[in-house]
Amino acid sequence: METLARLVSEDMEAVESIIHDRMMSPVGMIPNVAAHLVDAGGKRIRPLITLASARLLGGGGDAARKLAASVEFIHTATLLHDDVVDESGLRRGKTSANRMWGNAPSVLVGDFLFARSFNLMVETGDLAVLDILARAASVIAEGEVMQLAAANDADATLDRYLDIVTAKTAALFEAAARAGAVVAGRAGAEAQALAAYGRNLGLAFQLVDDALDYDGRAGAMGKNVGDDFREGKVTMPVVLARDSGDLDERDFWRRVMSGHQQDGDFQRALAILRKRNAIARTLDAARDYASAACAALASLPANAYREALLELPGFVVARAH
Amino acid sequence: METLARLVSEDMEAVESIIHDRMMSPVGMIPNVAAHLVDAGGKRIRPLITLASARLLGGGGDAARKLAASVEFIHTATLLHDDVVDESGLRRGKTSANRMWGNAPSVLVGDFLFARSFNLMVETGDLAVLDILARAASVIAEGEVMQLAAANDADATLDRYLDIVTAKTAALFEAAARAGAVVAGRAGAEAQALAAYGRNLGLAFQLVDDALDYDGRAGAMGKNVGDDFREGKVTMPVVLARDSGDLDERDFWRRVMSGHQQDGDFQRALAILRKRNAIARTLDAARDYASAACAALASLPANAYREALLELPGFVVARAH
Repeated sequence: METLARLVSEDMEAVESIIHDRMMSPVGMIPNVAAHLVDAGGKRIRPLITLASARLLGGGGDAARKLAASVEFIHTATLLHDDVVDESGLRRGKTSANRMWGNAPSVLVGDFLFARSFNLMVETGDLAVLDILARAASVIAEGEVMQLAAANDADATLDRYLDIVTAKTAALFEAAARAGAVVAGRAGAEAQALAAYGRNLGLAFQLVDDALDYDGRAGAMGKNVGDDFREGKVTMPVVLARDSGDLDERDFWRRVMSGHQQDGDFQRALAILRKRNAIARTLDAARDYASAACAALASLPANAYREALLELPGFVVARAH
Repeated sequence: METLARLVSEDMEAVESIIHDRMMSPVGMIPNVAAHLVDAGGKRIRPLITLASARLLGGGGDAARKLAASVEFIHTATLLHDDVVDESGLRRGKTSANRMWGNAPSVLVGDFLFARSFNLMVETGDLAVLDILARAASVIAEGEVMQLAAANDADATLDRYLDIVTAKTAALFEAAARAGAVVAGRAGAEAQALAAYGRNLGLAFQLVDDALDYDGRAGAMGKNVGDDFREGKVTMPVVLARDSGDLDERDFWRRVMSGHQQDGDFQRALAILRKRNAIARTLDAARDYASAACAALASLPANAYREALLELPGFVVARAH
């Protein structure tokens, strides 16, 4: 990740300044709420992918930078709305915006950033880029609604889980990489390769996130351990443990995932996940997606940008260790 | 309004079919929540304006229809989010979506429709149109946040109120009309004229709405009478009554608008509004904006579409009688 950040540091400085410039508004509550998230030390992984994808193919410049800022705005908007949807109290290690100011500013400032992301895309003058990100935005919303409908459904299958993750998380990674190629004028096979890279990286990213939700060390990473469990989100660790569990364990998962939880349940869940090796198997799956992400870049020009992108999936998986 | 609807009925049928087609999703909760609003008998005033504006200038066709559907999607998305922000229970005479399904689907389906509106705009292939509506979308969000910040501020001025209304309501009417001209290939003076028409019509529309909030007959129009009052929204009737009231009345407005309400306050508010002629003066202001809307069309070609647009402001104001 550091290699990548160093490689595009000049671009990223420009992106940061676009982000801070465009989240401004004479309506003071908007920059306040936006800054709460934007300045909370996110890793900017999505805009980094956009910039590196464009540079890898010989592109870059103003349009790529605006596009990268636009991708980060879409991400920030979804975080603001997610916190309202999940009623979360913690985000990036800080009290979440909805907990600090209420749901209304989170909803509206999310809308504002979403609109601003389209303003920025319009300025790139590239309709293909708008097409990619508008599609991604509707797929993300579909994924979030799928996840909502699946909450407390203790029988949700692995396929359904992967559909949700592909839509709610991987779609934006995919669009960030694909749009980087397109803005560099390479809409063909190179864009497809980078899209596959982004999609697989996004899947790896979310699987690691879901594993960390059952890992005590995640507390240091700015989220509440056990949030998914308490919200009845049937993530990959639970699916794997449930499907390889005995009758007693299946009854347990059915009860707790359908929302009937009592004291000590989370500790029991952790014990079962350990017994069934479910966290390790989730991370194995994340590693497989990380490998697929790297493999997707095989046909692209071998330069420093490709090297940096090849390092990223390993970094994402290593978060869990 | 009927004249206008009749004149573009073929266009509007196509728009309805685009709306219903594009709100579809394999994720069943999305069309369910969207249909709850879309099929609740909204007047489709914004897409009608877009279509008539395009036709007035000799435009029309597929791009104008997609644009009109896109404008209605933005409107529907803001309604879904508004209900979460205001914690409303009633919308278009039905239980609101957030009351029926909770906040989460309203937020996410709003996001979905917002994204779909940009998909549709991309399909028009017209970057100028995207620019107009992306700008409008961020201005609308700014207006909503301004309104939020002004709630329970009993001293809010008339200027501030008009700033809020211009942003949260008039901006989309303005964009709907302007984009109609642009999609017809008339981005210059004609687009400016139609933009002024839309802006003034939107102001008239919101003033009438705010007057109806204090009018018993509004119950028949699908909203709760007194919502603005209970939410401490300092709308024009309150501003006018407060600024022409005696010391006692000013104390009353300060107390109730800052959120300290008790039984009988709404009845007393109605009595003061009557005494100070505040509803009638709000409707006078609405009529002035309606006249300004009509005046803005003076330089445009005199055809049936212009005639229908000239009738619309009168219809909007007549809602209150």
